[in-house]
Formats: sequence, structure tokens, C-alpha cells
Amino acid sequence: MDNLALCEANNAPLTPITFLKRASECYPNRTSIIYGETRFTWPQTYDRCCRLAASLLSLNIAKNDIVSVLAPNIPAIYEMHFAVPMAGAVLNPINTRLDAKSIAAIFRHAQPKILFVDRNLETLARATLHLLPDEEQRNLLVIFIDEPDRPKRISSNDQLDYEELIRRGEPSSSSVARMFRIQNEHDPISLNYTSGTTSEPKGVVVSHRGVYLSSLSVIMGWEMGKFPVYLWTLPMFHCNGWNLTWSVAARGGTNVCIRHVSAPEIYKNIESHGVTHMCCVPTVLNILVQGNSLDMSQRSKPVQKVQRLGFEVLHVYGLTEATGAVLFCEWHDEWNRLPEKQQMEMKARQGVGILALADVDVKNKKTQESVPRDGTTMGEIVMKGSSIMKGYLRNPKATSEAFKHGWLHTGDIGVIHPDGHIQIKDRSKDIIISGGENINSIEVENVLYKYKKVLEAAVVAMPHPMWGETPCAFVVLEKRKTGQGDCDDQFMTREGDLIKYCRENLPHFMCPKRVVFMGELPKNGNGKILKHKLRNIAKSLVINDDNTIGIKH
Amino acid sequence: MDNLALCEANNAPLTPITFLKRASECYPNRTSIIYGETRFTWPQTYDRCCRLAASLLSLNIAKNDIVSVLAPNIPAIYEMHFAVPMAGAVLNPINTRLDAKSIAAIFRHAQPKILFVDRNLETLARATLHLLPDEEQRNLLVIFIDEPDRPKRISSNDQLDYEELIRRGEPSSSSVARMFRIQNEHDPISLNYTSGTTSEPKGVVVSHRGVYLSSLSVIMGWEMGKFPVYLWTLPMFHCNGWNLTWSVAARGGTNVCIRHVSAPEIYKNIESHGVTHMCCVPTVLNILVQGNSLDMSQRSKPVQKVQRLGFEVLHVYGLTEATGAVLFCEWHDEWNRLPEKQQMEMKARQGVGILALADVDVKNKKTQESVPRDGTTMGEIVMKGSSIMKGYLRNPKATSEAFKHGWLHTGDIGVIHPDGHIQIKDRSKDIIISGGENINSIEVENVLYKYKKVLEAAVVAMPHPMWGETPCAFVVLEKRKTGQGDCDDQFMTREGDLIKYCRENLPHFMCPKRVVFMGELPKNGNGKILKHKLRNIAKSLVINDDNTIGIKH
Repeated sequence: MDNLALCEANNAPLTPITFLKRASECYPNRTSIIYGETRFTWPQTYDRCCRLAASLLSLNIAKNDIVSVLAPNIPAIYEMHFAVPMAGAVLNPINTRLDAKSIAAIFRHAQPKILFVDRNLETLARATLHLLPDEEQRNLLVIFIDEPDRPKRISSNDQLDYEELIRRGEPSSSSVARMFRIQNEHDPISLNYTSGTTSEPKGVVVSHRGVYLSSLSVIMGWEMGKFPVYLWTLPMFHCNGWNLTWSVAARGGTNVCIRHVSAPEIYKNIESHGVTHMCCVPTVLNILVQGNSLDMSQRSKPVQKVQRLGFEVLHVYGLTEATGAVLFCEWHDEWNRLPEKQQMEMKARQGVGILALADVDVKNKKTQESVPRDGTTMGEIVMKGSSIMKGYLRNPKATSEAFKHGWLHTGDIGVIHPDGHIQIKDRSKDIIISGGENINSIEVENVLYKYKKVLEAAVVAMPHPMWGETPCAFVVLEKRKTGQGDCDDQFMTREGDLIKYCRENLPHFMCPKRVVFMGELPKNGNGKILKHKLRNIAKSLVINDDNTIGIKH
Repeated sequence: MDNLALCEANNAPLTPITFLKRASECYPNRTSIIYGETRFTWPQTYDRCCRLAASLLSLNIAKNDIVSVLAPNIPAIYEMHFAVPMAGAVLNPINTRLDAKSIAAIFRHAQPKILFVDRNLETLARATLHLLPDEEQRNLLVIFIDEPDRPKRISSNDQLDYEELIRRGEPSSSSVARMFRIQNEHDPISLNYTSGTTSEPKGVVVSHRGVYLSSLSVIMGWEMGKFPVYLWTLPMFHCNGWNLTWSVAARGGTNVCIRHVSAPEIYKNIESHGVTHMCCVPTVLNILVQGNSLDMSQRSKPVQKVQRLGFEVLHVYGLTEATGAVLFCEWHDEWNRLPEKQQMEMKARQGVGILALADVDVKNKKTQESVPRDGTTMGEIVMKGSSIMKGYLRNPKATSEAFKHGWLHTGDIGVIHPDGHIQIKDRSKDIIISGGENINSIEVENVLYKYKKVLEAAVVAMPHPMWGETPCAFVVLEKRKTGQGDCDDQFMTREGDLIKYCRENLPHFMCPKRVVFMGELPKNGNGKILKHKLRNIAKSLVINDDNTIGIKH
């Protein structure tokens, strides 16, 4: 048995790059990308990626070099998901909603060699570069991406642009062979920052093997058949579009790329191209509902409303550290016989682990023992398997903390129901999820604390009709020496001041929409702020559709 | 980058054993196995497998030991696909249609430690054991499997039986942990003999990693959604049931096990259990058609006939060396607009490579260069990837021959069409070379199949004094309802008729010079026609210089 050696014929590294070559060979006549008037077939996409990879190699991109990209869902960022790893480099897609300061922090940490920038984000990119030390600026090659159907703006120096790289990249058969010679499937393929604003952003490194297995798991979990038409409402910079960048190639599907996510844009593309699949954070569900003229009960949940529009919704749960979606709420046909309310309860559960995971469990945080499968005993959701991240870049402390006891600790608190479905009961304490983006409340608090008059600050989630959640700040100011009479006046002023200040120091989406001033914050005996009490207050505040604030009754 | 080490949390060996544990946790209420009146749920199947594995460990089964099984598609052989590798051993399922001599040859080569035998195959097993030397007999522990619902026959000595092993196997948590501690995903999981009739059987060793990837590829190639109801018409001893043993667990499906494959049995089970999927070799397609009372045109091919019965047929191609099915004829909806005849031609193609393969190609046998994708230039179908076998057991010569130039050589001759689909034109050894012209025997057979009364046809080379070789056809006609008296008359007429018909439909040199009518064609246990036997018959027939036919002495 043991003398059966591995060889080239029976041992190939697992990498999603093979999906692209296969698509070009097996689906030569099918459309790979639709973007406005632009159309590519799979052989064209493969050719363009080979050319881009060849150009990257000619720019002396070496193994494990970081290549960053700042772009919305345009064809270029899709192509880079193949071309960059084909050249042996690591793709670092950046959240376009971050501010210059946050992106600069990522650059200082990731030390990319090349930055690709969508032309419409030029201002943000230049502002970011100004924040970098001269040497780092010099070492970073910036390449702009212009719209394919628009004349290229002439840059001052003879700057490279994206299409020029593709034109001049001529992959010889030997360079193509070199590109595919991934030595080790555990090599990194992508670097995704979970948060961009702290002085110490955390960069999640995922491997070829990890995304290969995750891509296949999404196909199976979603029961995505051959030739899907996939609409890119989910940003590709968000955890590589939950690996669907690669899954769509595996399925010979069509990527419908759109620059802006709006109801007219979504419905127009569904209509024109026969979209079969799309991913929606709750915000996009709201966009779908609000963009539709059907009159619907305000009491329904977004999922319910969207299903009534004819969409079939599959609830999934994931995290960047687990390389995307890891729990799928697999539907049992028997549940169709339940009353709608109960069906919604079933659908609200996060579900069962994907096939790529070796194990998923809910464990008591203290004893590390599995909780009983009773639907009520809470514990931390943990998982292990080859699809889990390699770790945090240059952060061994955070990595070993995440992987303690041999499991990835998600920080999410949940239960396991007797039928095997996992349900989250409490978000990892401080996270606010706004429009699908995780906001770490501590980061916002840190900014507030720097405001001269702020004595204490605590930020929690408050409900928001569009974004799902939005930050709400509770603030204790230093003792004022004014009389009580003008208090209300000051109150109003201060709220506007603080919000304005936050907008100057944080990405827009992270800024509190409401600041509540208190005499003191609720605390436990050890002086720890009781955020659940603040969350209860915040829940009674609602932001109306016209952006005014009201009290929920 | 490089200091991100692999650890327990992010690096688990790929093994299909995880599918079973997952099914027991994620699908606790679903039926895993139906067999007559017997029913198991996934937690029960998991428990039974853990117990069996614990018992195997207590019998001192060590890593890489061979455990053979001689059984039809009963629950026990399904369970062994998990329990044997859980104990670190290698499963060797044996073709039950082989004779004692062939099985003894396998035992001498594989040297199994344990043989599980279905009670109904006791005679065959005992005849096999008698052919083994005394020492080998003593070293082989034989364990019988009785029907679950029938009283156990008392054996002479206090022999173990299968259910007894399950009863007494008590997996402690430490032994379960030990079972799952697969150290290396490249470890062997199964040993399948490709041919049991030669003096030197070839044992294909496949790995945990290989069958894991193949199992997932079958799910995706077949677009098999969650909770399939799978009818076991394909023997599990045949390449582990094309990995569906493991795929069904991955999908939380239901295995409908049947002991005998017959039309009433198949239709009854489809009716009772809502079967959604089954695998059919051409013989089983014929069983389906003949077992149905619908009157159908005799000119149709089996696939066409079966589709008219309401079955949707997906054509796949595979080989044991590639760990099962590797080409899937993925259907494009546009093809539904083609005339039925052309649709059948599309469906007859073997198709495109599965996702698990790193590459598939058709190469010129001499130059090893890829053939053009023109649908006409022939070459050998070759492939590479992690789902390919580890090699042939104790046969380094055959292994290195199969893997030469870094590819698995299938020995099948085919073309690649411009749309990427591969089509087999012939087995390389089945090519007939007549006067220097290559004759594709399958083409001749296809013409014969269109003749109204032909049920089965096989064309092989027969020696020819002028042309070297010439085609000889072996034909099975549909059952005639005439008396025996006129049989010879009909026979003579028919041979002339068929040859005349071929000359009207084929180039002259491709027409059979002789048609031999048979009651049935010689087949192996999997229903594959044994062309080498027909070639031996054909060799004994000679065409004399005056074009009359004689028998070689």
C-alpha cells in the first residue's frame, strides 16, 4: 500500500483557478460576464486573465506578494480573482466604503506591491496615498481601471492602465504553465480585512484549498445547478463575494456585474438577463421590497415580503474567518405544511454546516463541552475544517486566540435545535451589522472618547428600516457648569456636533445616527457597562423612513 | 505569510467519513436506508457504523489491512463503506458475479484479513476458500451476514456474524476519536479489482481524498439536490457504486437497497418510496424498457425508449482507475430545440470533465499532443487530478504505465467537439484495422442497433487473409415468436439481410463480413460486453480466399 507514490497524474493542488480553465474548455460558447454593453465568453475571460497574470509577472510580482484592488463589482475585480493568484500573488480586495484613513491603515499593514483602482474611486485612492509615508507611496504601483466602453483618460505620466496590461500581457505556453504551477494548495490566495479603522486591522488570509472547498460547498448548499445567471449585488470585496467569484466559473454561469446596487438596476437586470441567483444582505432585501410597487403589510419581515415578490430565500450564515458562508438553512419540504409564521421561524435559523467543514458545534464557553441539542442551551458556535482561514496576517496573538482548543471560535452565541439546525441567539456582544457590514462598536467608541467633552461612551445597535441596524451612541459628557435652563438647547447642538465629528473621523456607515446623552451609563458591580440595557433603550428608538427619529410603541 | 501554520482548526483530512457524522447530526430524522421492511435513520446508521468499526478494532484490524466483502446491495455493504475506513482499514468489495477461481485470485493478490459474506453467497465463498492454500484460509476470518429480518442460522463453531459484531461493538468516546483520526487524506480507503477473470487481476487503490472529491463531483455533475431517494440498481461492489455510497450520505438522502435488479423490483420501489435517482448500465435500461408494457418503436435506442417512459437520462463515463464517473454529458437547454434524433446524438456524447479533475484532454498517442477540438481527430482520452487512483496494488509496472507522461491513460479513443464535449469513438483495443483503415467498431454497432429486430450488437475484428482484419458482428435478436422449424431459414436470411443493410448504410470496408447470432452476448458482472471473448470466437472463423467462411483448425 505504502509504496503507491503520489505523482503528477493523481495529485494536483486544489485551486479554484482550475475552474476557469475548465470553463473556457467545457463552456466555450457561454457568456461569462455581462456588464452594461460589455460581454465576455468564458474563453475570453480565461484569455484576459492569462494576459493579466502574464503582465503581473512581467511587473516582477513574486509569490505571496499582495495585490490590492479598490473597485465596485466591475468585470476587472472579477478577473483579478483568477489572474492575481495565477501569478502566484495574493488578492486583497478593499471595502470601497472605507475612508482614506482606514484604507491607509490596511496598506500599512498589508504592504501591497500593486493597487488597482476603479477610476471613479480615484479621489479616495489619492487621499489614501497622501496618508502614506513617501517610501511606501513610491513602492506602491497604482494602476487605474477605466470603464471598458469609455475613452481612457490620459494620465500625466505614461501611466499603465488595466486594459493596457491585458493588451500587452502575452502569455506564452511556458508562462501559462508557470502560472498554473501552484506548488501547495495551502498557499494563500486572498487577504480580506475584517475591519479597516483600528490602528491594528485584522487581515484574514485564506488558502487555495480553503476557497476551493468553500466554492464547491456554496454550489451544493445553494443547490446551484449548471449555468446560473448570477447578479452581483454582494460586493466582491466582501469575503470574495462569498466565494461566488469562483463558484460561478465552476458552474459555467454568467456573472451580471453592476456598479450600483439599486432597485431599478436590480429589477432591470433580472428582467434582461434572466437572473437565477443573487446574494442579499438584509439591506438589499429592503431595497428589493421598497423598489417594488406591491403594497405590503408593514408588519411582515423582509424575508417574508421578498418571498411574496416571488423570490425564494435561502438563509445563510458566514464569516470571513471561515472563508464565507458556513451554515445553510436547508429547507425540508415537510415545513411547507407549517403556518407561514412558523415557516419564517424555521427560515430565521442559521442552519446546518456545509460539507467542507470537518465539524461544527456549539460549546459552553467555560467548559468547552458541547451543549445539549435542545434548542435552548446557549454556547459559542465553533467549527473546524480545511475551509477555515489560515490565520490573521502578522497577528499570531489574534490567530492563536481564534484557534484555541483546535476550533475556530466565531464569537457568536447560539443553540442547536433537536433537528440539527443551529440558531444564533446573541450576536457576539459588540458587533453592529449595518447594510451587511460589521461595525465594531469599540472602534466607534474609541473615536468618541477622543472628543474633548466626552467622559464615557457606549455604542450599540439600533434598528434601521434600510440598513437593518445602525450605530446608536450613549454618551456621558463632562460635568457642565451651565444652568439647567439651557440644557435642551445644548443637547440638540451636541448631538449634531458629535455626529459631524464622527463623520470626519470614521467611514460614513460607521457613524452613529443618534447620540443619546445620559447622566451615567448602566453598569454592573465591577463597573462594566451593561450594553444589553442600552440595546433595549436603542430598540425603542426607531429611525423613520424620512430619517426622523421616533419612539417605538 | 509563511508563518501561518496549519493546525487542528483549519486543516482536516478530506474523508467521506465526515459525511456520515454530519448526516447523523444535521438530518437526525431522515431515513438513511430502506431495505424490505428494514428502516434506519442517519443517527442509527452512524451508530451501527461506529459499533462495527469498534468491533473491527477489537479484532485487531490494523491500518491499511484489507477487509473484503462479498454481498449484493444490502445494508451491510453500505455500512461497511464507512465502518471499514473508520477503523483505518481498506474496503475491498468483490463482484458477486465472479466465479470461485476468479475470487480466489483476488484473495491471493489482496491478502484480506476479514471476509464478510452474504449468507446467500455462502456456497460461492466456501468454494473460493477451498481454492486457497491452508495457511491463507486460516488467516482469513470469515463473517457471515444474515438477513436482518430472518432468524440467524446457527453455525457449527461459535462463529461471529455481522449483527453480532454490531451488537457487541461499543464505541467509547476514545475509540470513536481514534477511528476518526485519519492521519493522511492520501491514505487508501478502498481496493477495487477491475477484472476478475484474468490470471493477474488489477487492484485499483483509491484514497480518502480521491473519493471525497469524486463524491462531491457526482453530486454536482448530477445536480443532485438535498434529500435524494436513491435506488441501488448499480452494484456497490462496482467502483463503490460510483461513490454514491458516500454522496447519498453527504446529501442526507435515502438509500433504497434491493437484492435483485429486476423490472418488477425497480418499478415497485420507485412507486413505494418516491425514488429520485438511480444509476443504469445499458443492461438496466433494457430491463426498464422490457419490464414496461408500453408499446414502443423498435427502432429507438434504449436511452430514447427510457426517456419516453418518463425517466430523465444523464449520460456519464467513468472508470475505476479514475475513481468513478469523470465525464458528464451536461445538457444545454438550447438542445431541447433540436430534432429528437440530434438530441440523442448530443446525449450519446460522454461530455465534460468533473470539477475534481485538474485537467482532461484527448491526446495523439504517438506525439502526446492535444488533438484539435474539431470533433473528428481521434486521440486517447487522458486526465489528471486528485480524484485519480493511487495506483494498482503491488503492480508498479502497470501503475507507471497507466500514469506515463503525468496523465492517467484511459485507453479509450475519442474526439473533442468544438463545444468542449468529449466523445468516445472506441476502446483502443477494440479498433479494427482493415487494410490499413481504422474501423470504429462502435459506429458499426450503432448502425446495427438501428435495424429493427436487433436487441444487442457487438462488432470485433476477425482475421482476414487479404485485409488483415475485417469486422465480425455478434448480434442478439429480439425474441421471435416463431416455431423452431423455420429457425435456420430465418437465420440465413437474416445474416444476408443485415450485411445488405450495413452495405446500404456504411462504407463497404466497414461492413461486417460475417454476422453471428447468439442467444446472449458474453458479459462481465457489470453487464459490460466481453469483447475479448467474442474476438476469440471470431479468430476461430476464417474467411477463405474464395470468400467462403471456414473454421480455423
